[in-house]
Amino acid sequence: MDKYVTGINPINKEAMQAAQSKLDGLVKPPGSLGELETIAVRLSGIGGQMNYDTAKRCVIVMASDNGVAEEGISLAPQSVTYMQTMNFTKGITGVNVLAKQFNTDLIIVDVGVNGNIGHPMIKNKKIRNGTWNIAKQAAMTHDEAIKAITVGIETAIEAANDGYKLIGVGEMGIGNTTTSSAVLCALSDTTPEQATGKGAGLNDEAHRRKIAVIQTALKHNKPDPADPVDVLAKVGGFDIAAMAGVFIGAAYMRVPVVIDGFISIVAALVAARLNPLVKEYMFASHASFEQGYKYAAQLLDIKPCLHLNMRLGEGSGCPLMFVLMDAACAIMRDMGTFEQGNISEEYVEGIKDADFHIGGL
Amino acid sequence: MDKYVTGINPINKEAMQAAQSKLDGLVKPPGSLGELETIAVRLSGIGGQMNYDTAKRCVIVMASDNGVAEEGISLAPQSVTYMQTMNFTKGITGVNVLAKQFNTDLIIVDVGVNGNIGHPMIKNKKIRNGTWNIAKQAAMTHDEAIKAITVGIETAIEAANDGYKLIGVGEMGIGNTTTSSAVLCALSDTTPEQATGKGAGLNDEAHRRKIAVIQTALKHNKPDPADPVDVLAKVGGFDIAAMAGVFIGAAYMRVPVVIDGFISIVAALVAARLNPLVKEYMFASHASFEQGYKYAAQLLDIKPCLHLNMRLGEGSGCPLMFVLMDAACAIMRDMGTFEQGNISEEYVEGIKDADFHIGGL
Repeated sequence: MDKYVTGINPINKEAMQAAQSKLDGLVKPPGSLGELETIAVRLSGIGGQMNYDTAKRCVIVMASDNGVAEEGISLAPQSVTYMQTMNFTKGITGVNVLAKQFNTDLIIVDVGVNGNIGHPMIKNKKIRNGTWNIAKQAAMTHDEAIKAITVGIETAIEAANDGYKLIGVGEMGIGNTTTSSAVLCALSDTTPEQATGKGAGLNDEAHRRKIAVIQTALKHNKPDPADPVDVLAKVGGFDIAAMAGVFIGAAYMRVPVVIDGFISIVAALVAARLNPLVKEYMFASHASFEQGYKYAAQLLDIKPCLHLNMRLGEGSGCPLMFVLMDAACAIMRDMGTFEQGNISEEYVEGIKDADFHIGGL
Repeated sequence: MDKYVTGINPINKEAMQAAQSKLDGLVKPPGSLGELETIAVRLSGIGGQMNYDTAKRCVIVMASDNGVAEEGISLAPQSVTYMQTMNFTKGITGVNVLAKQFNTDLIIVDVGVNGNIGHPMIKNKKIRNGTWNIAKQAAMTHDEAIKAITVGIETAIEAANDGYKLIGVGEMGIGNTTTSSAVLCALSDTTPEQATGKGAGLNDEAHRRKIAVIQTALKHNKPDPADPVDVLAKVGGFDIAAMAGVFIGAAYMRVPVVIDGFISIVAALVAARLNPLVKEYMFASHASFEQGYKYAAQLLDIKPCLHLNMRLGEGSGCPLMFVLMDAACAIMRDMGTFEQGNISEEYVEGIKDADFHIGGL
């Protein structure tokens, strides 16, 4: 693991400057395409050249069970993790549909589902049939945490070697908003009350129970805030750990990596704590409806482009972000210059100093 | 015009209920796809059946000059309206690139560009070579305002008859953030200071001048807040009026209509004042960087899905929204049910009462 964590390089600042110069000469007021321009420049920096080819992309879904589910923090039984993981192979889930719609492949990884999967479309990287219950003990051993992170790193490297140019990070695991909240609290000043939403339909009692479980897990396990691997081992899950690994592996391979919702952004935070350079490769997709999301986003200093009140998980927000990345690259590649647009130099100079809108004042 | 304004029907609430029922039976926690579900349900209501076909779509761009440009509120000369309108025919502008990327046609309409266009790709609906200067007199006569609105209505009806199933509303016209701000202020309690941003690079003096021009225009022309046509005639523009007409014509033809940025949302507000039922057909795309946008959005009680800090205009945000509408329709059409996903009924009942996340807790 360490080889990859320490082997991440900064993105190419010269390529970014060249990209910014090109954008500023296109037939629009400088900066008027906002985040699309920022995305385009960052992709140039990651690829090390002006244009970035976003055509081949995937979402990696880490599926795993979480022992804390036995605390009754969800009305859904743990077995739904297994069933929904199998459903990914049928093409019927939310992420299946959105991935197909936007030319995205799915890579499903069993990193600890409670049950025998044995399906050719699902990578078997099972560490164990789910973690232990964090309300009573550590989720996993330190070695298992490193093993789970390594699963993610290896999956991302394999995807990069297979030619994927954009990677999204999703998950399936009943109980993983509880573990994600615990990890977020362990790594920051965020409180369990802040990190834990009512979601949709969680009644007051169930909400209090969820918060209490997180408080107990933190108190009992005493995760070391300075050691992200310890935090994962004590109060995380195989899913979150493997997802953190995907962020690291993607950055190591210089591939842009897209955050989905709450669990995904907590995994991104873990990865950024292991090496802050990972952030240069990260893109937020949507602002999750889960209330803990915004605290993690603040800690990462990252702003999502999509506000859709989504809270499905599975990596379902990633294909939507891939489309915005397609848009950014199309702007960089296909727009004309001021010269091609017959907008003369004196105007162009004026534009640069003023509140000029093409398509407006 | 009146025939169309009064001829708008509410969308089909029964089709919406059926659509919501279908979504609630898909293999995900009810509501967990957030706005994608809301969009899908609204499209079912507009189309009057479960699935909506988003494949054929267009952005209508209303191009026109604004006499207020002579007040020097922009460093860009008025002639840029003409040049950029011609650039739409070359495929090099921002909206060209995003439209092409997302299978969207452009319909460019000259409703009052200062100059002879005479291009086969641009519809000639010119009322006059630009409006008069609102700082000195009304922008246009009352008859001209109705004529401009009618241009928009007819263009939308023609598009609907040509089979377009989604219509976006864009513009090109130097000076039109000033007129849009004036219209917004005339129709609401919004002040010129609130409605008028510094945009990018507008210095303090130019910003004060822009505000002063809007104040003068409002004071001098005394638009009647209860009469949207009077407001358009006194302080609007041919572009905004024609855009308001597109919203009306689209709603009349039961076609979903997408708002772009600040000028577009002000035109949407005008249309909604003419008949509030138009709102049932409206979709916001992105939260414009222009500070007036949020006031108009509040007045319309509409929330944009995309936060991209864009401020290009031209209708450039609409193709991005079309993609999210594609996503919403794909969910409705392609996702499997709980039954297909082998998630048994007792779990499904639990899901409905609880904070259950597939892909999370």
